[in-house]
Amino acid sequence: MSENCLFCGIVAGTIPSTQVASTDRAIAFMDINPATAGHLLVVPRAHSTDLREADAEDLTAATLLAQSLVGLVIERLDADGANLLSCIGSAAWQSVFHTHLHVIPRYKDDPLQLPWHPTSGDMDAIQATAAKLL
Amino acid sequence: MSENCLFCGIVAGTIPSTQVASTDRAIAFMDINPATAGHLLVVPRAHSTDLREADAEDLTAATLLAQSLVGLVIERLDADGANLLSCIGSAAWQSVFHTHLHVIPRYKDDPLQLPWHPTSGDMDAIQATAAKLL
Ligand SMILES: [Zn+2]
Ligand SMILES: [Zn+2]
Repeated sequence: MSENCLFCGIVAGTIPSTQVASTDRAIAFMDINPATAGHLLVVPRAHSTDLREADAEDLTAATLLAQSLVGLVIERLDADGANLLSCIGSAAWQSVFHTHLHVIPRYKDDPLQLPWHPTSGDMDAIQATAAKLL
Repeated sequence: MSENCLFCGIVAGTIPSTQVASTDRAIAFMDINPATAGHLLVVPRAHSTDLREADAEDLTAATLLAQSLVGLVIERLDADGANLLSCIGSAAWQSVFHTHLHVIPRYKDDPLQLPWHPTSGDMDAIQATAAKLL
């Protein structure tokens, strides 16, 4: 655990999040500034700054959890596809320095462009979406 | 191997590519329509349509190879970061239907936006970049 790390706080439960899945090594929770409806983050429980520094077993666990969530958002949210994205370094749009994988559901003809401009999502809508994934 | 699959052809060697790394289960080669200098693709040797369908061991192997290449592009190409991206479904910008992970080197203040507009890269420049990764 790294002091002052937002995602370590979420893993520890000292910072609230809307969690949708967890394993021994990784957890998944809703992004509160979603790029599209159902945008999730998958993070290894163990702290590492970015994907380069992640332990192989932690990265594997996070990737396999993300894989299952890609299937789940397509099935449960009627998404037409998804992007898996990781940002390594601020030059690559990383803003929280704890390794994470974005699972971004995609909808036919949605207007997504990356980088997206994070704006606060509607928490009721986010909770309702999360409920479909449980 | 799937008939008429571009990446199966590259894995088999019947379609040329500029390969930079390989393991038992995955290979990495230069994207010929690079989004940024050094853009690589990592693909499991075994055919699957997209990341949802990939065997866990194949996806793990591809992810760990991609992780090592993220480190390599930052070190050898003086990149400032990188994005790891997978596109699942045409709604998510997938255009070749064999599971692949993009490793996109990032350079401070580069103008990258996704989706990028694939245009043929300069093959001499691509080969010269690949040579730095070997
Ligand atoms: Zn952390
Ligand atoms: Zn194939």
